[in-house]
Amino acid sequence: MNQVPDEGMVLVPGGSLLTKTPEEGRALALTLARHTIHNIQPDLDVLKGGRPNCSTTPGSLTAAAHVVAIEFQTIAAANNYWRS
Amino acid sequence: MNQVPDEGMVLVPGGSLLTKTPEEGRALALTLARHTIHNIQPDLDVLKGGRPNCSTTPGSLTAAAHVVAIEFQTIAAANNYWRS
Amino acid sequence: MNQVPDEGMVLVPGGSLLTKTPEEGRALALTLARHTIHNIQPDLDVLKGGRPNCSTTPGSLTAAAHVVAIEFQTIAAANNYWRS
Amino acid sequence: MNQVPDEGMVLVPGGSLLTKTPEEGRALALTLARHTIHNIQPDLDVLKGGRPNCSTTPGSLTAAAHVVAIEFQTIAAANNYWRS
Amino acid sequence: MNQVPDEGMVLVPGGSLLTKTPEEGRALALTLARHTIHNIQPDLDVLKGGRPNCSTTPGSLTAAAHVVAIEFQTIAAANNYWRS
Amino acid sequence: MNQVPDEGMVLVPGGSLLTKTPEEGRALALTLARHTIHNIQPDLDVLKGGRPNCSTTPGSLTAAAHVVAIEFQTIAAANNYWRS
Repeated sequence: MNQVPDEGMVLVPGGSLLTKTPEEGRALALTLARHTIHNIQPDLDVLKGGRPNCSTTPGSLTAAAHVVAIEFQTIAAANNYWRS
Repeated sequence: MNQVPDEGMVLVPGGSLLTKTPEEGRALALTLARHTIHNIQPDLDVLKGGRPNCSTTPGSLTAAAHVVAIEFQTIAAANNYWRS
Repeated sequence: MNQVPDEGMVLVPGGSLLTKTPEEGRALALTLARHTIHNIQPDLDVLKGGRPNCSTTPGSLTAAAHVVAIEFQTIAAANNYWRS
Repeated sequence: MNQVPDEGMVLVPGGSLLTKTPEEGRALALTLARHTIHNIQPDLDVLKGGRPNCSTTPGSLTAAAHVVAIEFQTIAAANNYWRS
Repeated sequence: MNQVPDEGMVLVPGGSLLTKTPEEGRALALTLARHTIHNIQPDLDVLKGGRPNCSTTPGSLTAAAHVVAIEFQTIAAANNYWRS
Repeated sequence: MNQVPDEGMVLVPGGSLLTKTPEEGRALALTLARHTIHNIQPDLDVLKGGRPNCSTTPGSLTAAAHVVAIEFQTIAAANNYWRS
């Protein structure tokens, strides 16, 4: 099996939900979602095989954006919405 | 590749979840959702190719509205629901 | 293009999440969801073309009710659940 | 059109999210979900035409249970989870 | 009609969201989800007819797990996450 | 029936939502989701039969990641987002 590299398997890269800015928090939300996928399916060839479909059909893109929105909700709360 | 312009790739345009009004907060929710899509699929031609389907079938419109509702939930909490 | 009238494009009609009663809050939830759809797809003919399907198939109705439930969650929190 | 009776069109029957018990709160969650559907599709014949499908296929039942779970989340928070 | 037994129709068995342990809270989440289904579709024969499909296809299992996750979110909040 | 081993049937392994790190919290989120599936469908042969499909199609992976995101939201709140 051609496996996802080790750093792609870390569930929470950086080990914290706290970020300096909303932009970084949003990037972390994207990363969390991707690394979950890596952990459920660590075979790179299977992942890449599915990718064209996943990132081209509108339904798949919206479903992925939905997951990012939920991860961001958690991260934003963790950071008190970067209010101050 | 014909890429999404740079400003469309910023995850949190303006760099803050705080807005003056609910109307602006709602507009930000729409923007966050769109820019997530741009980051997952930055090829404009693929995005535009899928768009007719995405914004015409009722299921796709409802799925998109669902994502906006969740983004707005986060933004509304960040702004203490614009209560005062 | 036969566009949605201007008032249907306002994202948060009334400009506030605060309502006097749960009933009004619920009506606002329905409105928020509809106006998001208008903003994503402002062509009335496309919207009306899809509507028969959207409001007749059980899956579409449940999906729409799901979005309303989330919008209402935000509005109810904004109003402290109309407790007092 | 054979319309849903007036009482089925009230969005929040009783006009409050507060209930005496979790059981009543759960019943209210089911009612909120149903009345949303009535408001989106007030034609009883269309609703009844779709019902066999909606309440027999597992996917539809799970989707409906999902909406009820979210409505209940709001109602439970409104009632401070009936803790005391 | 061969109906779900009376105890399966109670929406919140035990009448409370409070449990001694996370394990019991999780079991309650599963029960809440199942009893909602019973209330929407109280015909045991229809329910059992759909069950093979519901609990064997991956999509249905994931959709059911999604509902349980939301019910548990409510129950965990009600119990202050069993922190002390 | 070739059943899921007993430890796979425990709904909340370790009996607590509290973890030392976000990484462990994320791993718990994955476990909670998997063990729910085990409880709904405890037949290992059925589970393994569905697994190739579940972890290879992009839609299934995204749906699974969605559930993990919600479980993590609960666990992160329980741990006060590991802020201090």
